[in-house]
Amino acid sequence: MCDTCGCEHHPQEQEPVTAQRIPVVQKILNANDQAAQENREHLKAHGITAFNFMSSPGAGKTTLLLATIAALRERFRIGVIEGDTASQVDAEIIAATGTPVVQINTGGGCHLDAPMVHSALHALPLDALDVAFIENVGNLICPVSFDLGQDYRVALLSVPEGHDKPYKYPAIFEAVDVVVVTKTDLMPYLDFDLPKFTELVWGLNPAASVLPLSAKTGEGMAAWLAWVEARLG
Amino acid sequence: MCDTCGCEHHPQEQEPVTAQRIPVVQKILNANDQAAQENREHLKAHGITAFNFMSSPGAGKTTLLLATIAALRERFRIGVIEGDTASQVDAEIIAATGTPVVQINTGGGCHLDAPMVHSALHALPLDALDVAFIENVGNLICPVSFDLGQDYRVALLSVPEGHDKPYKYPAIFEAVDVVVVTKTDLMPYLDFDLPKFTELVWGLNPAASVLPLSAKTGEGMAAWLAWVEARLG
Repeated sequence: MCDTCGCEHHPQEQEPVTAQRIPVVQKILNANDQAAQENREHLKAHGITAFNFMSSPGAGKTTLLLATIAALRERFRIGVIEGDTASQVDAEIIAATGTPVVQINTGGGCHLDAPMVHSALHALPLDALDVAFIENVGNLICPVSFDLGQDYRVALLSVPEGHDKPYKYPAIFEAVDVVVVTKTDLMPYLDFDLPKFTELVWGLNPAASVLPLSAKTGEGMAAWLAWVEARLG
Repeated sequence: MCDTCGCEHHPQEQEPVTAQRIPVVQKILNANDQAAQENREHLKAHGITAFNFMSSPGAGKTTLLLATIAALRERFRIGVIEGDTASQVDAEIIAATGTPVVQINTGGGCHLDAPMVHSALHALPLDALDVAFIENVGNLICPVSFDLGQDYRVALLSVPEGHDKPYKYPAIFEAVDVVVVTKTDLMPYLDFDLPKFTELVWGLNPAASVLPLSAKTGEGMAAWLAWVEARLG
């Protein structure tokens, strides 16, 4: 018995401690799934293929988007939805390329949800697009629980984050269609074990492609672009 | 009017799109604050100073903890609470140093909350501790909303994440007592602007210390250890 608060925990009985998600989340997710289905129909009606990019903050989502836009813009009409808790710095970077872009600010919220994306889709010229890239809020945990109506889910994991992340954040690696390992130019300065990382990802999700690349040096970009193009019209 | 779902959004009227947090969060936070206050009394009654480490995945929380334990363990009795969505790899690394440690697995949840920490405190030998280091779940957004009853809040931001993060994730930088810039050994290979980053942090939170360091090379560790020690005993 805890003498401060009167609870009945006993140290010896409960280690390791395991806490569960709050049950109210289920209701939110159901409402989200309905909106996601509407987004999916919307996108399909306009012939748009949509990709949902998810990663930790600073893993290189915007940099990969810029390199992808530069490589594909001559052949595909691209639109972007940028998600951030605050600011529109990323949207401004994308807009500077002449690409239609909408910024969603979640007001502190930790993920994009389908209704937010629905609103953003209305602000894009859907009839003039082939591809929508959705850059989620930087967060390796929450975004994966929210279907946005995308066709494909992309996880980015940067080399400096370490190859052990599938142990600690399995849900995202289980859920995505492709795992892009970014910032491979930093490999010489870090002890990132790519074979071990790939083994961990495939242990969770044997169907996922694992594509290492550096948007800075261009190494690995061809395979990534081929992966994207194979999924477009 | 949206022809797929019948909603009344009009593209021209609502850009940029701004979404708010779901209101149910407020209730959860109130219950959390009560548990945090109990934790605070608990820790105070045992003369323990507690630090809550928060950062993105892979920013170096565990590595900094290991270096801090190695430097302080002769003079202070240290206990650790490890938070992860899954696995106990970090707790095993800490336990190998002979430090009492409890692993909290959140079962997919994106942050530690005060009731989880309460349970973990019961599994630590509180009478035999001077310091508790709490390593939160790797997430730059959600953990900051949940007071754990700690005395000090520590944000880590690793050099590879980029100096623009205070624009996009302001809440954590506003809330903490110190911002540790980790992995400074990677500075030569990246364009991280430390003066700019410091300016952005101080624009949000003029009282925060900003301490750059590399736990790998030891550069900057003395200032960090001095900051911690000044808050002990």
